[in-house]
Amino acid sequence: MTSPSPLSGVVPPLLTPLTADGDIDIPSLERLIGHLLEGGVDGIFALGSSGEVAFWDDARRAAVLEAVTGTVAGQVPVIAGVIDMQTDRVVQHIRAAERFDLAGYVATAPFYAITGPEEIDTHFRAVAAATERPIWAYDLPVCVHVKLSAAALLRLGSDGVITGVKDSSGDDVGFRRLAAGNRAAGSPLTLLTGHEVVVDGAYLAGADGSVPGLGNVDPAGYVRMHEAARAGDWERVRREQDRIAQLFEIVFQPTDKVGPAAGVGAFKTALREMGIFSTNTMARPMSPLEGDAVDRIRGILEQTGMLGGSGPDADGA
Amino acid sequence: MTSPSPLSGVVPPLLTPLTADGDIDIPSLERLIGHLLEGGVDGIFALGSSGEVAFWDDARRAAVLEAVTGTVAGQVPVIAGVIDMQTDRVVQHIRAAERFDLAGYVATAPFYAITGPEEIDTHFRAVAAATERPIWAYDLPVCVHVKLSAAALLRLGSDGVITGVKDSSGDDVGFRRLAAGNRAAGSPLTLLTGHEVVVDGAYLAGADGSVPGLGNVDPAGYVRMHEAARAGDWERVRREQDRIAQLFEIVFQPTDKVGPAAGVGAFKTALREMGIFSTNTMARPMSPLEGDAVDRIRGILEQTGMLGGSGPDADGA
Amino acid sequence: MTSPSPLSGVVPPLLTPLTADGDIDIPSLERLIGHLLEGGVDGIFALGSSGEVAFWDDARRAAVLEAVTGTVAGQVPVIAGVIDMQTDRVVQHIRAAERFDLAGYVATAPFYAITGPEEIDTHFRAVAAATERPIWAYDLPVCVHVKLSAAALLRLGSDGVITGVKDSSGDDVGFRRLAAGNRAAGSPLTLLTGHEVVVDGAYLAGADGSVPGLGNVDPAGYVRMHEAARAGDWERVRREQDRIAQLFEIVFQPTDKVGPAAGVGAFKTALREMGIFSTNTMARPMSPLEGDAVDRIRGILEQTGMLGGSGPDADGA
Amino acid sequence: MTSPSPLSGVVPPLLTPLTADGDIDIPSLERLIGHLLEGGVDGIFALGSSGEVAFWDDARRAAVLEAVTGTVAGQVPVIAGVIDMQTDRVVQHIRAAERFDLAGYVATAPFYAITGPEEIDTHFRAVAAATERPIWAYDLPVCVHVKLSAAALLRLGSDGVITGVKDSSGDDVGFRRLAAGNRAAGSPLTLLTGHEVVVDGAYLAGADGSVPGLGNVDPAGYVRMHEAARAGDWERVRREQDRIAQLFEIVFQPTDKVGPAAGVGAFKTALREMGIFSTNTMARPMSPLEGDAVDRIRGILEQTGMLGGSGPDADGA
Repeated sequence: MTSPSPLSGVVPPLLTPLTADGDIDIPSLERLIGHLLEGGVDGIFALGSSGEVAFWDDARRAAVLEAVTGTVAGQVPVIAGVIDMQTDRVVQHIRAAERFDLAGYVATAPFYAITGPEEIDTHFRAVAAATERPIWAYDLPVCVHVKLSAAALLRLGSDGVITGVKDSSGDDVGFRRLAAGNRAAGSPLTLLTGHEVVVDGAYLAGADGSVPGLGNVDPAGYVRMHEAARAGDWERVRREQDRIAQLFEIVFQPTDKVGPAAGVGAFKTALREMGIFSTNTMARPMSPLEGDAVDRIRGILEQTGMLGGSGPDADGA
Repeated sequence: MTSPSPLSGVVPPLLTPLTADGDIDIPSLERLIGHLLEGGVDGIFALGSSGEVAFWDDARRAAVLEAVTGTVAGQVPVIAGVIDMQTDRVVQHIRAAERFDLAGYVATAPFYAITGPEEIDTHFRAVAAATERPIWAYDLPVCVHVKLSAAALLRLGSDGVITGVKDSSGDDVGFRRLAAGNRAAGSPLTLLTGHEVVVDGAYLAGADGSVPGLGNVDPAGYVRMHEAARAGDWERVRREQDRIAQLFEIVFQPTDKVGPAAGVGAFKTALREMGIFSTNTMARPMSPLEGDAVDRIRGILEQTGMLGGSGPDADGA
Repeated sequence: MTSPSPLSGVVPPLLTPLTADGDIDIPSLERLIGHLLEGGVDGIFALGSSGEVAFWDDARRAAVLEAVTGTVAGQVPVIAGVIDMQTDRVVQHIRAAERFDLAGYVATAPFYAITGPEEIDTHFRAVAAATERPIWAYDLPVCVHVKLSAAALLRLGSDGVITGVKDSSGDDVGFRRLAAGNRAAGSPLTLLTGHEVVVDGAYLAGADGSVPGLGNVDPAGYVRMHEAARAGDWERVRREQDRIAQLFEIVFQPTDKVGPAAGVGAFKTALREMGIFSTNTMARPMSPLEGDAVDRIRGILEQTGMLGGSGPDADGA
Repeated sequence: MTSPSPLSGVVPPLLTPLTADGDIDIPSLERLIGHLLEGGVDGIFALGSSGEVAFWDDARRAAVLEAVTGTVAGQVPVIAGVIDMQTDRVVQHIRAAERFDLAGYVATAPFYAITGPEEIDTHFRAVAAATERPIWAYDLPVCVHVKLSAAALLRLGSDGVITGVKDSSGDDVGFRRLAAGNRAAGSPLTLLTGHEVVVDGAYLAGADGSVPGLGNVDPAGYVRMHEAARAGDWERVRREQDRIAQLFEIVFQPTDKVGPAAGVGAFKTALREMGIFSTNTMARPMSPLEGDAVDRIRGILEQTGMLGGSGPDADGA
């Protein structure tokens, strides 16, 4: 929590609202960013998995960055995902993004092709060499199908190649080992967790902040949890996390979809029900949630106080 | 932490010390149990994975239970693993154990044969019907190759089939959902975590205690962490957990072994270096740790204050 | 096909028919064995996965071997599974089986506990040292969760520890490498494939025979395929295999079950529909197939000529 | 073998030779294509996994297609991989390739983002709608992390969305079910196998041809095997396959690399040793094979008669 990191705290991976025709829905995007800033977030992560980056071509990626950086207008730092299957394409995404006001980039290891430790190390070094801006390594085995080892990340951090890690590995033992190793090495890395419902444990282990997809829906809750963690008020951390975990149940309501069609679909649907999004349209080839799942999501929003009024608080304030 | 559970707190899965010939080493077992009781543990789990139950035949299992219950002599509750590949054998292990002073049994889902939710539910109900004593469900996908769902566990708990869960699933999101569901259902289940280095997060999520293999080596550390969690002293919880995590690095020192040959092998080696075990002999077909790994384990024990004196304390007390 | 192996050809893994109360159904077992011998099988594998060995205790295993060896009465060799989670138990199953007329034993690597190459090698050597009879290594990663490497198997074969391999690994590339390595080593191993619908390719690769669960239903088809392969009549091999593959669709009809509850359940249901079994009762905790799945299985049996008359033939003879 | 398919037989996934600086090595490419045509291949698959497509940006992909189609000059059909993580990008690769003389495109399901059956179906339909040329579905779970079901592929085939499947799934049971379903549906699909060492079994199951990476090294061997299969000379098929399997051992020689760095690295090294490639340079971030692995690869080439003379023949002709 004492890391002099360039980016810590709550950094939601920004959703990309779409019109019914599949275009970027600028008014909804402005409302979403307003919702996040009002909630007190410390930064915004554009073009992450929750932003459906895996479904955007180059033109759409540029349009998203233009809209987001224009709307945020420097009020908080914006970092951008440069997710692609190999080194050259990642570098090209960086080139295309250099004209925007960004605080850095988030890159994964190569995917599709199987690579080993040597190739992954070379990859991150080549990516970092392509820009003056900082690089976060994104550890997301469920998509990339490789786990970044603590030793590899710490070496990249100590060498100044990466500035931080977004950990969405689901490996809490690995995260604690990474955090301990990071402290022992003088904290070269900022550590952000991507797991919505166990952020409290990650804070105890040494996380500097969180990148929760659910933070699009309830940014203020995550901000309160972060502040409580910084203040050492762990009972409050736990209460906020428990309430947020209850809200997170929205992602389990779709029973006929998997992956982002279910999870991001639930976030988009919630934001539509909350009046922030105009539609819950998804990137093709995904279709939006409909029917009972929408009803159940609305029910959970009501139970957790997310509909109407100024929003919930774990203390009922 | 407020659960009226029959067993909470620190319940180490007892190692089984062996002589060089592979027999149960009674003097070492007595020293180990003394070490645990002195450390303040709340119970003992005999014949768990750390106890090498997967390598014992029926006669050896009975001998272990006789030695353990005789030595513990009612000072703390003892629960026993009744691990086997199918229902009838699990029931037979229960029959054989009924003559010992045990507080209950720990059973997994069937393994080797692939089973589905229906069979797993039937299995646990048949196991529970075979005894008056309580049953804990052991969720250990790395060995059983199935994840017990929160919904299934809560149904078994609400129906009085199981009294608790030992969670070694490595799925911290799933554990929080289980803990939340358990509270919502009136806490029919006691929840124990088996993950040595993220017990702090599990306490925040709602664990009632822990079953740490490393608790054989440092029972007092886990007991201090548990007491701090009950007292709401989360900074101390975290400090103890961080220190314990440093000690846990012993299991990563063997580079030519996997599974219990590495992990239990490291625990046994540590206890030998600490003067509690006479040997670090493993159940066949495993061989004991030798060479550099032993030296590195000894080095970690020294760094973490586990050799000599009255043991370490995260506050240096 | 030229291996001087003690057992080659078609060796079905014998199902265990049960009465409605779950006892061994001796008349059905006698009809099943008669069906297999009439079909011309070269041997019988009792207490394999298809025999539901994973659900039997020691008494039931002995009863099965007594009934099977008594009924077969030396007409073909019988080999027996000695499947259990660790070395000592496997040896005990061998001890218990030595009084029966058996041509050898089939053992897996240890399971539940994770083991590495060293432990697996030690395990098979200890198992083989316990008996004069030959040992087959059973490579079944879907249950044992480890793949036996060709190098390890060939070393065990060259050292006289194992006499053959039952390959149910689903790794056809690995099987070819094993077959090539076996030939290069002077064919110390007999190689049997356990994959019902790709036996033809396994014969081309170098299999000496097959251990097909579906062979309980259609032994004559597998025997015709084996004879055609020995005669080099590959068009006939292919036609038989295609017809058998059509019959194998029965295992995909249950939509609410997994594992043996589906696959062995389909075999048992087929044999009941064919008048060979009295029930399709499964070992607990499994329940028998009912409803639409049974109707669809009956439909497939009709389409493939398995109901009525003297059975099908790929040439319509 | 009787399919009226637009492309059957041997269709190697063309390697991309590079200069030491990482540029496309045109003279080596011309020699490779000459080697393949001389070997009698039926078509060429450019920009597949063996072509390192996963490491090429758009400009490099276009340069490869230009060089390949220019060199092949219509002598055999060329199909091109349009591999990318999502629908829009796949369509863009098709747009960029429309100016080249291509017989069709090879596309995978989306990857990185998890998708389900609905999204995969929509994806292939959108890809096919973008071109008049035929589409092959590429089933490669080791890279795409989803298995395309036979039912889904047959539906896409019957609807005219795809013309064929390149199966690199490693699931020989699934392949047989696909082949049987395809015949039952009137053979809407051409089925090509991508597994180098079990092509013989795939032919028996119903494959129309093969797409073997090793076919870059030994095209004539695969062509002889295909011709023997068409002639029903299965003993010769088997002999060729066994010889080719021996050659395939080159991919297991690198012990410090995984994925294409090992496999494609071995192919490139073999072609350099054979005098066809000038270097064994790999796409970044991969490094070329060096040291003992190269020596062992050379040894295997010598043993299998691939160095010097007019090449090997399973009959010694």
